[in-house]
Amino acid sequence: MKLIRYGEAGKEKPGVIINEKRYSLPDFEGDYDEAFFGGDGLQRLSDYIAANGSQLPEIGDDVRLGAPLTRPSKIVCIGLNFADHAKESGAPIPKEPIIFFKATSSINGPNDNVTIPRDSVKTDWEVELAFVVGKKASYVKEEDALDHIAGYVLHNDYSEREYQLERGGQWVKGKSCDTFAPIGPFIATQDEIADVNNLKMWLTVNGKTYQDGTSATLIFKIPFLLSYISQFMTLLPGDVVSTGTPPGVGLGVKPEPVYLKAGDVVELGIEGLGSSKQTLVAWGEKQ
Amino acid sequence: MKLIRYGEAGKEKPGVIINEKRYSLPDFEGDYDEAFFGGDGLQRLSDYIAANGSQLPEIGDDVRLGAPLTRPSKIVCIGLNFADHAKESGAPIPKEPIIFFKATSSINGPNDNVTIPRDSVKTDWEVELAFVVGKKASYVKEEDALDHIAGYVLHNDYSEREYQLERGGQWVKGKSCDTFAPIGPFIATQDEIADVNNLKMWLTVNGKTYQDGTSATLIFKIPFLLSYISQFMTLLPGDVVSTGTPPGVGLGVKPEPVYLKAGDVVELGIEGLGSSKQTLVAWGEKQ
Repeated sequence: MKLIRYGEAGKEKPGVIINEKRYSLPDFEGDYDEAFFGGDGLQRLSDYIAANGSQLPEIGDDVRLGAPLTRPSKIVCIGLNFADHAKESGAPIPKEPIIFFKATSSINGPNDNVTIPRDSVKTDWEVELAFVVGKKASYVKEEDALDHIAGYVLHNDYSEREYQLERGGQWVKGKSCDTFAPIGPFIATQDEIADVNNLKMWLTVNGKTYQDGTSATLIFKIPFLLSYISQFMTLLPGDVVSTGTPPGVGLGVKPEPVYLKAGDVVELGIEGLGSSKQTLVAWGEKQ
Repeated sequence: MKLIRYGEAGKEKPGVIINEKRYSLPDFEGDYDEAFFGGDGLQRLSDYIAANGSQLPEIGDDVRLGAPLTRPSKIVCIGLNFADHAKESGAPIPKEPIIFFKATSSINGPNDNVTIPRDSVKTDWEVELAFVVGKKASYVKEEDALDHIAGYVLHNDYSEREYQLERGGQWVKGKSCDTFAPIGPFIATQDEIADVNNLKMWLTVNGKTYQDGTSATLIFKIPFLLSYISQFMTLLPGDVVSTGTPPGVGLGVKPEPVYLKAGDVVELGIEGLGSSKQTLVAWGEKQ
């Protein structure tokens, strides 16, 4: 299944994509939240579609998409999980995964405008493959990890490099600005993705390709990551884990880094997980 | 007012402390959550107490206290915010605040047992003064900051120093284990605290004093911190911001660091914010 949420920001409703078309779910109970993922939500949705699939009302392509899940308890990100990206960032390849958090208040619809923070000059992009936790995970073994995953989703891990790297201490400062986490267009359940370790990933800015990678070159793979993180904290249903970005971020461009400015258009996609498009706006402009 | 939540873990109900006694709030609508703090919750509670104060049912001292708020969108912590603590940690005094997150899944009742993570050998304590956000805060000026604060609360920012400092990258790994954020006993609204910049803070382990400080020596004060954080992310009502720990953590003990082991009892308090007490248990033991 492919899960979407659609409608006005803050008032989104759950829907699905079937054969490339969007449908609403009249009378389907609940939203894509912790209770849904942690309970029998996916099974209920599957049953609901089986029963009502041919009669579901279609949603127009002009309707806004929100992030395809409600605010999770946390967004966990993995740093420098592609060897080439570590190199372009001037960082060594990590011996074990680097974990950081992104504030959940940064979540945005996949095609909403992204606001450059006030006085910011180093706003950067990162196409990432994220997974959504489907079952509470604490000290999970690697071989059991996939049982704890509800599905996969496209994420652009926007990053303000000055805030992240030059303002003292921890990366979270440059990762958590409002609108910095466009998630979606949809969550694909595991059965939709034949091989999550072999998906093309790409990102363009104003039509020029900057990132052109594949999930095949992830250093730490998804089952290992879920197991690893679960040794340090409990992952809750609906939590988002973003697995890191391939080479080609603005920070790594030679001879000079390239950062985003108002009016720039970022498009990105992952094979099987759709694409998203964000227009950058200056702080104080209408989002 | 002094806000508490009481009852079985996961099923807590809101209550209050009046003249050292705990009371339940029959028919009071809602819980101490984002809607409560961001809406007119404190005013409604004040009106409710004025109307019902003398008839409220008392809660026995044997009833468990939970954290005095529901799971917030985030716990923001400030690192090395006491000059002496920076020194004992072998770190320079920060030029601007260090921000890190603690997973909200680590929240615990103030007197609940704390679990030493599996195979952990460096579990440490940190008595901290935290504030609870009362109004959405984005690019807030320092002079307006106090309008965005609902109240203050005691927090023990448990930290696994190996996970935090020796396992690669970011501190969040050592800050987010389950039970690592005992919060409470109560949230004191601002009017309860005469001078938040002059509160004694203390912590003992098995009766021996390790931390004996005061909020007077915070490097970055609370209004500045709220304003500063709000430049990097939006603080939501109910969010918890923990302002850092004074000297005397286990990591800093000479000649050798002291870490917690199963059976140890940690007690801590802040003047005006009550005290809490945690017994350490090994992973796998009953909490």
